[in-house]
Amino acid sequence: MGADAAKREPKSEPNVVLDWGPAQFRALLIGPDGEESERIETPQGIQSMVDGDFSGLLARTLTPWRQRRGPLSIVAAGMIGSRNGWLEMPYVPTPASPADLAAAARRLELEGGDTVTFLPGLTHRAARPYPDVMRGEETQLVGFGLGRDMTVVLPGTHAKWARIAGGRIERFQTFVTGEIFATLSRHSFLAKVAARPAVPDRQAFARGLAAARDAQPDAGGLLTRLFSVRTGWLAGKITPGEMVDYLSGLVIGWEFVEAERGGWCRAGDTVAVVGDDDLVDLYRRAAEASGLAVVMGPEDAAVRGALAITALV
Amino acid sequence: MGADAAKREPKSEPNVVLDWGPAQFRALLIGPDGEESERIETPQGIQSMVDGDFSGLLARTLTPWRQRRGPLSIVAAGMIGSRNGWLEMPYVPTPASPADLAAAARRLELEGGDTVTFLPGLTHRAARPYPDVMRGEETQLVGFGLGRDMTVVLPGTHAKWARIAGGRIERFQTFVTGEIFATLSRHSFLAKVAARPAVPDRQAFARGLAAARDAQPDAGGLLTRLFSVRTGWLAGKITPGEMVDYLSGLVIGWEFVEAERGGWCRAGDTVAVVGDDDLVDLYRRAAEASGLAVVMGPEDAAVRGALAITALV
Repeated sequence: MGADAAKREPKSEPNVVLDWGPAQFRALLIGPDGEESERIETPQGIQSMVDGDFSGLLARTLTPWRQRRGPLSIVAAGMIGSRNGWLEMPYVPTPASPADLAAAARRLELEGGDTVTFLPGLTHRAARPYPDVMRGEETQLVGFGLGRDMTVVLPGTHAKWARIAGGRIERFQTFVTGEIFATLSRHSFLAKVAARPAVPDRQAFARGLAAARDAQPDAGGLLTRLFSVRTGWLAGKITPGEMVDYLSGLVIGWEFVEAERGGWCRAGDTVAVVGDDDLVDLYRRAAEASGLAVVMGPEDAAVRGALAITALV
Repeated sequence: MGADAAKREPKSEPNVVLDWGPAQFRALLIGPDGEESERIETPQGIQSMVDGDFSGLLARTLTPWRQRRGPLSIVAAGMIGSRNGWLEMPYVPTPASPADLAAAARRLELEGGDTVTFLPGLTHRAARPYPDVMRGEETQLVGFGLGRDMTVVLPGTHAKWARIAGGRIERFQTFVTGEIFATLSRHSFLAKVAARPAVPDRQAFARGLAAARDAQPDAGGLLTRLFSVRTGWLAGKITPGEMVDYLSGLVIGWEFVEAERGGWCRAGDTVAVVGDDDLVDLYRRAAEASGLAVVMGPEDAAVRGALAITALV
């Protein structure tokens, strides 16, 4: 079913929040209290969809819920609404309120009676050299709440720093920190030497943070500091078991250095960290090492945001 | 044969320069005029040496030359003398002259009469947070000549910027630019979209350089700018066929930005670019885009340097 079949329909209370990403399918059944009551997770991410039959897979996967609850009202944010996903949703420009996001939502009626409401992404057109984009994080920001005037950090493969104020998302910027970490730890000079520790090595992470924050002029930029994973090993100062956590601290710490230089924060500020995985704790540590006070967002910010935006559709 | 068998011997004129790297074996036969007269290249790099029988493979591979020329006098610099190679050679500390490098060379006598003279690496102990290291580039620097007082750039997976003056290598710094380019172009978000052009796209490379040099404060640091490969594609401004060359321009251009910030050069300076592959031309373009005048080193700097150092052993 193409995007032409999509149209906006009157409001309906969603009972499924769909988080269908590149590497994973995840659906959350929402109870009458607005909380997750059940979830279905499969490894059938967008990247594994060779036949493009998104509606068929969705219908089959959610059969147990449909049998119990009748036709499902599904809301979907994030990469499923991207060029590589089911249908390409527009990007709403900053500054944007939840109502602005709701106005760009599109509802698709599926065979069997289910509906899917796709939420749009967000673009910051003033970014250089090309408009910056997010898909999914805008929903997390709404779930966190836009009432405060502050900087919010959303860790991830492509981490986002956003400024919220007056009920709107004012602007944001992407940092590909997670991508650098993943590709270097798996495929670079250190991949052959590094041993993955069973539990995260907090001390090695902290040393990576410190290496990122070294303000001496000859400490160099990121391209130079990354080599310290190797030189530290050659010097007998970083063991193979410490390399991955040291690298993690180095790149996340460097993200904060770049964010400070870009005016997103400075020592003494309070920033929020919003996410639902282990990265949140690492970013909290990096923020504290940068002299920032930290407010932690709710783990279910994405669900809260999806429901809040859909309530305005 | 272990490192214990290595000892320094009186000077002998080498007739083979060995460039045995991680992914490739390369040996150059040197004629009486000191120029390469013949070469043997195989894909049997250090990484493929599962049995550790370096001397056996070397002896077999160079048999044709030994049959014609008798026992070979081989000189070896670079990664073959590293922890992952045949034997681990020491690093000479900066500042270092060719004589300092020669004093740390070690000669190994092989069964059959061949000798291998291993040249040391170089370390800059004042680097932060750990001593920086090079193996092989110091030999290229000697081959370029240390008589001038200038900055020399040696492109590569781990590019080196070095300061030479008064016949010595004063200091140097590593930039992992090539590693970032290789891992991102093969394994990141852009690997799925990018098409490798048959010929380099100079214009896309120049646009990447320009994106690196954008001095507006909100243009961000490297972690942000790398995302422009994706946002440019999403905005219809970068085609899949342009992505790889744009990324190349972006990361090499950023290396020059970091080098400027670190005091290695500033607009109007003359720098040398020394190497033997396609990177040299890309670095020349990046240098010129940075307002630098460029002296190009000889392609055979590594051979010249190996012979010059060995002549002092």
